[in-house]
Amino acid sequence: MNRKQLIDQIRIKQSFLCVGLDTDLAKIPPHLIQTDDPVFEFNKRIIDATKKFAVAYKPNIAFYEMLGPAGWESLKKTIDYIPENIFTIADAKRGDIGNTSGYYAKTFYDTFNFDSITLAPYMGVDSVQPFLQDDKWAIVLGLTSNKGAHDFQKLELKDGSTLFEEVIRKSSFWGSKENMMYVVGATQGEMIGRVRKIIPDHFLLVPGVGAQGGSLEEVCKYGLNKDVGLLINSSRSIIYASNVIDFERHVSKAAQELQLKMKRILENNSLI
Amino acid sequence: MNRKQLIDQIRIKQSFLCVGLDTDLAKIPPHLIQTDDPVFEFNKRIIDATKKFAVAYKPNIAFYEMLGPAGWESLKKTIDYIPENIFTIADAKRGDIGNTSGYYAKTFYDTFNFDSITLAPYMGVDSVQPFLQDDKWAIVLGLTSNKGAHDFQKLELKDGSTLFEEVIRKSSFWGSKENMMYVVGATQGEMIGRVRKIIPDHFLLVPGVGAQGGSLEEVCKYGLNKDVGLLINSSRSIIYASNVIDFERHVSKAAQELQLKMKRILENNSLI
Repeated sequence: MNRKQLIDQIRIKQSFLCVGLDTDLAKIPPHLIQTDDPVFEFNKRIIDATKKFAVAYKPNIAFYEMLGPAGWESLKKTIDYIPENIFTIADAKRGDIGNTSGYYAKTFYDTFNFDSITLAPYMGVDSVQPFLQDDKWAIVLGLTSNKGAHDFQKLELKDGSTLFEEVIRKSSFWGSKENMMYVVGATQGEMIGRVRKIIPDHFLLVPGVGAQGGSLEEVCKYGLNKDVGLLINSSRSIIYASNVIDFERHVSKAAQELQLKMKRILENNSLI
Repeated sequence: MNRKQLIDQIRIKQSFLCVGLDTDLAKIPPHLIQTDDPVFEFNKRIIDATKKFAVAYKPNIAFYEMLGPAGWESLKKTIDYIPENIFTIADAKRGDIGNTSGYYAKTFYDTFNFDSITLAPYMGVDSVQPFLQDDKWAIVLGLTSNKGAHDFQKLELKDGSTLFEEVIRKSSFWGSKENMMYVVGATQGEMIGRVRKIIPDHFLLVPGVGAQGGSLEEVCKYGLNKDVGLLINSSRSIIYASNVIDFERHVSKAAQELQLKMKRILENNSLI
């Protein structure tokens, strides 16, 4: 999917919601456990319940990999089930030397047909470039929302900038706003403002709204640009909204509530 | 495998050789392609041909993941085939928030029974701690040997150190020499000396000797410690030493040549 198609979908759905498919057998409704492929059965229902409100889905690859070969089958079925007009993100946080990165690209782009993949930047340019392909996106970790983000990402460099700013600044020259996005955690809105000074036009993938405590309003205040420029991810607060028999109804409602908030924000900023 | 057992194996085999199982269908001898599981058949022969000379095996996970579910089956069979007294490294370069890291640990430690996994440090403490388990090892990227290593790893920090030094210094407090190692590329011996000032006792996993141009002698000059403290990885120059029918003979010879060099270095340093 290219940038224009993504922006079109955001305007059509009046939403910049990404639903995280962090599907955990220990947390899905018990009545699905007896099915042949409970992970896929759960994802199918989540997708059906949220596809009107979401513009992106982001499976966290660890949850599938943990299940061995069966997990990869469930992932493949899930990706094949996601409608064509919804953006897909392999949350894999890969990062390796050039030829190995090429193999990871082959896995996630060709075998699974993902639109994008999340990448760790520590190994530099040749860990990112193999993922910059036509209508495919490298989503590089900028500033994450976990406790360990403080260990290295916020180190002060000799020139006065911090590491995450330099990572974003330098890597932004490897591609363009057409094939690169950045992960920027929602827990500190002011930091999103600092990121926007470096890359005013790129899309940001923002985890941490909801369960991790980030505020949607604050993220939007600092992060919106003229093309919206945000994908806000929510995982647990949507997919585990309920585990009753008709859990889909609660899931759908949780997604719609977030979408309606987004719609209001888009209207208030004259973006739709 | 614990530290003492690893050191014992090094002394018994007079070797600190790690063989990288970067098994690529495009490069393995043609007569193996017709077998049911060519990746495993190749690995099995490589293991048989090198197990006298190697103290560790390091499958690069990208090569297996690329093949879909079949690749994970080949990987599982490979790990099960490696003798108990040889250290195993999942070269996966994972790194994610705490609960996700826990799932990756479950995959590589429990499902596959690897002794260790390589990790990218960008997300900090909670991306490493879940991998510090009994007789299991987190192998953190310090300084890599690829082109992109210059982009961020060598950035100068405000306090005058460089990023890779700070990554190693800080993360070394999260575990100990009993459960952490560091990846330090072989292409610059002097850098290994700088690493040794920070962590004199930890094991270093050193890629880049051979195909990537690093010198074994130089790595040893700067990197050896009183417990040897080095695992030197070689992939292509051993496993693709030949692709004739009896390629195993050439593979075995390539591994033995490296082992004999290592033996001489250990003797010259009074380590055996």
